[in-house]
Amino acid sequence: MKGTNEPMNISRLEPLFQARSVALVGASTNRRKWGGIMLANLLNGGFTGRIYPVNPEAGEMLGQKVYKSVSAIPEAPDLAVIVVPAPAVVPVIRECVEKGIKAGVVITAGFAELGAEGERLQRQMVEVARQGGMALVGPNCNGIMNPWKKLFVEFPNFHVPPGPLAVIAQSGNVVDVVARQLMIKGLGCSLCVASGNEADLHIEDYLEYLAEDPHTKVILCYVEGFKDGRRFFQIAREVTKKKPVIVLKAGKTPAGAQAAASHTAAIAGADEIFAAVCKQSGIIRAGNLHEMVNIGIAFLRQPLPRGRRLGIVTAGGGWGVLAADACMELGLDVVTLPEATLKELDAILPAWWNRGNPVDLVAGSFADSVFHAVEAVLACPAVDAVIFLSIMPALKIKRLASAAEKTQSESFGQELVQATSDVLDRINVLARKYGKPVVVASEHLLATAVQEAHVNYVLGQRGAVCYHMPHEAAEVMSALADYGEWRMKKGEGK
Amino acid sequence: MKGTNEPMNISRLEPLFQARSVALVGASTNRRKWGGIMLANLLNGGFTGRIYPVNPEAGEMLGQKVYKSVSAIPEAPDLAVIVVPAPAVVPVIRECVEKGIKAGVVITAGFAELGAEGERLQRQMVEVARQGGMALVGPNCNGIMNPWKKLFVEFPNFHVPPGPLAVIAQSGNVVDVVARQLMIKGLGCSLCVASGNEADLHIEDYLEYLAEDPHTKVILCYVEGFKDGRRFFQIAREVTKKKPVIVLKAGKTPAGAQAAASHTAAIAGADEIFAAVCKQSGIIRAGNLHEMVNIGIAFLRQPLPRGRRLGIVTAGGGWGVLAADACMELGLDVVTLPEATLKELDAILPAWWNRGNPVDLVAGSFADSVFHAVEAVLACPAVDAVIFLSIMPALKIKRLASAAEKTQSESFGQELVQATSDVLDRINVLARKYGKPVVVASEHLLATAVQEAHVNYVLGQRGAVCYHMPHEAAEVMSALADYGEWRMKKGEGK
Repeated sequence: MKGTNEPMNISRLEPLFQARSVALVGASTNRRKWGGIMLANLLNGGFTGRIYPVNPEAGEMLGQKVYKSVSAIPEAPDLAVIVVPAPAVVPVIRECVEKGIKAGVVITAGFAELGAEGERLQRQMVEVARQGGMALVGPNCNGIMNPWKKLFVEFPNFHVPPGPLAVIAQSGNVVDVVARQLMIKGLGCSLCVASGNEADLHIEDYLEYLAEDPHTKVILCYVEGFKDGRRFFQIAREVTKKKPVIVLKAGKTPAGAQAAASHTAAIAGADEIFAAVCKQSGIIRAGNLHEMVNIGIAFLRQPLPRGRRLGIVTAGGGWGVLAADACMELGLDVVTLPEATLKELDAILPAWWNRGNPVDLVAGSFADSVFHAVEAVLACPAVDAVIFLSIMPALKIKRLASAAEKTQSESFGQELVQATSDVLDRINVLARKYGKPVVVASEHLLATAVQEAHVNYVLGQRGAVCYHMPHEAAEVMSALADYGEWRMKKGEGK
Repeated sequence: MKGTNEPMNISRLEPLFQARSVALVGASTNRRKWGGIMLANLLNGGFTGRIYPVNPEAGEMLGQKVYKSVSAIPEAPDLAVIVVPAPAVVPVIRECVEKGIKAGVVITAGFAELGAEGERLQRQMVEVARQGGMALVGPNCNGIMNPWKKLFVEFPNFHVPPGPLAVIAQSGNVVDVVARQLMIKGLGCSLCVASGNEADLHIEDYLEYLAEDPHTKVILCYVEGFKDGRRFFQIAREVTKKKPVIVLKAGKTPAGAQAAASHTAAIAGADEIFAAVCKQSGIIRAGNLHEMVNIGIAFLRQPLPRGRRLGIVTAGGGWGVLAADACMELGLDVVTLPEATLKELDAILPAWWNRGNPVDLVAGSFADSVFHAVEAVLACPAVDAVIFLSIMPALKIKRLASAAEKTQSESFGQELVQATSDVLDRINVLARKYGKPVVVASEHLLATAVQEAHVNYVLGQRGAVCYHMPHEAAEVMSALADYGEWRMKKGEGK
């Protein structure tokens, strides 16, 4: 499997993801139409390759010369994006094949998801494409993005910056949502695919390509069902030895499965089987979209834990309790700290500290003592990983207690951003020093919503992240531990 | 129970929550000390009653005359806030009692949460207070807030606006986080209490008071353990007939329970029993802090559903699948829509729509047709409630397709806020018309993070809410249905 397929998909998907020239068949100037939206997005995205709008009326659109047909284009473009009505798709693909085009994205809907007649049309489309050696994304999809090449064949109109996270989803909506979440968190994407009905290219084909893509560090994957589940897991098992693959599976329940069938003609299997096979393949499973994004980001900077033994350091008592609950429910071990570590903490913390795990910093612990406490727990040989909750007492802000008076001010916002970044940087240095992950979650009690958005953006740009709630930290830590175990089992742990 | 206790706690807690004069015993000008933080917060909050800082050094603090002792104050203030060190607390309370003060908030820590000696001191404190008819919050707590009276006895220094949600928590940290979440969502609080060790006043005492408080529409409650579980549930069972009570229970696992014990000396019971008793008492249980806030907000505007039969209308296929899964897992019934409703939808939607539930709007449904689809499902007699996902196609924005070009602009932000509010308003009109709830969840694909924060704020101010992810809509809807069932069972459903 491994030796034979990998190279094929790499070269096969090259003209798709690394296209230097794109034909847009069905281009339009009407921005309520897909052909209009796609053209505008591609141009606005700053694609530096050649763009060939195709429309029988020819002329000019948004400053681009329009070609009457695919055959009229003066070269064989790497990629054809097809937005013509369903009945016209097969003839267009035939024309593309004749032209020598090797990759296509079929945006058009109205195929297998609508029943037998659409199914027939879809089969025909694939036949023509395969005979001509043309790889197809879709149909019934939202397109692809390669931000590193400024290639945005996508709806709606935002342009996620280049970054380390790949997104494959059997839902264009999900691609957009995930990409935007990463964007507003200061991060970016390596490649995005909305795979639609997967008539030709399946989710596992993209996975195989992403395993070798140098920009992709982490793969996020939304799945409703598999065309070839066995092959997906065979490939995933190899990919997860190199990069984390996080999967959100929809269609778990009968109601969801039925919705999936009419959405992308996907057949959802039994969820118990899926869970078991994920485990055997090193796939990390997310419970919802928030969790998928949260987990994906965690892998960018954190060392992998060597086990599930956890220390929690918290500046909020309630948060410690909530985190301990969430961690234990996820199978993390909130360890009893050894006496040696407790003694070290005795020297750092006020006399009345709780001498337990979670380590409750209680009032009176500020700045340096907070970091010393985190370090003492990190250094403990009985601990594989640390969750640090509530950064407020660690923040170095000049006039903490009077911050409310100037909360709205620009300069306070800057100070807050800087102070928060400093905390995360310092935590990161400690994590590296001990080769153990530290996941941070905190409210930003001093910040306005706008300042909070800005803090998260700046942190993301630095590759750091401050999660919000204790249960989020637990979910992320559990995923890190799962993947750490998998990599160790495969003898390739960091 | 009902007849005897309610009036007692109402009058007993009046001087606490409706204080017209406050003594701050242990006031300080050092803003790193609790006495300094509290004084600044109280003053900055704009409290219009009389403030009496008490400190043996007398003189003046922040423009306020300082009194040497409680007995030196020229009146008996309604409320004493006590921040002196633990050994000094009992003598201060004795002084307060002699002065005739009827309510106290003991911020100071170092009591039952530290073991036997602290326990002894705490018992002594309660004894003195009870003999003198003084009701006590705490010790080891973060204070109280009554935003309607601008009474902010609280750390840290933000001032949540007055609003309809009450927060009771056995963690000051949780009070702050929840209050701030409401604040940045454009909402406010009626009353907040961080109940600390609950030496005297228990969580159920506050609950009883809040049931009668005219500003309180919804009660959010964070619990680590009960001093008197039986009494709590007896009271809760009465309160939930009038107002929704949402409880987040921490200390569910052994790790969490142990953390709770050292946090507030709480004894967490078996979680299965807790779940069962909640159900018998009409309490709605939240799984985490996000969920507690999400659910709380939902009750402000939505009519209660008369059952669990659900229609889903979605502009994103993937979101429909995820929502259907989440709803079914929570015991909501994603019904098969009757032919009459399908026919109505046929007349509204493009021919290729999926004719199922979720109703997938597919590309080509804009503005009015979206609302017509929501209304057709709402009107269906087989449906008790509707989830509407992804508002984008319903947004009336002048140049939708070219929005990216001006996304950053001020005027676009305003347009987006207005358009989003309009959608929620229109949905709300439909919900009222049919007397059924419509829960909305959507990404704001066109917005920057800052614009999104602004949208959520403005929506909150109007009493509306647009949730983010499909699973959040499902969680909220399930809570509405649970409470709807409870109220119907008690013969008081709306």
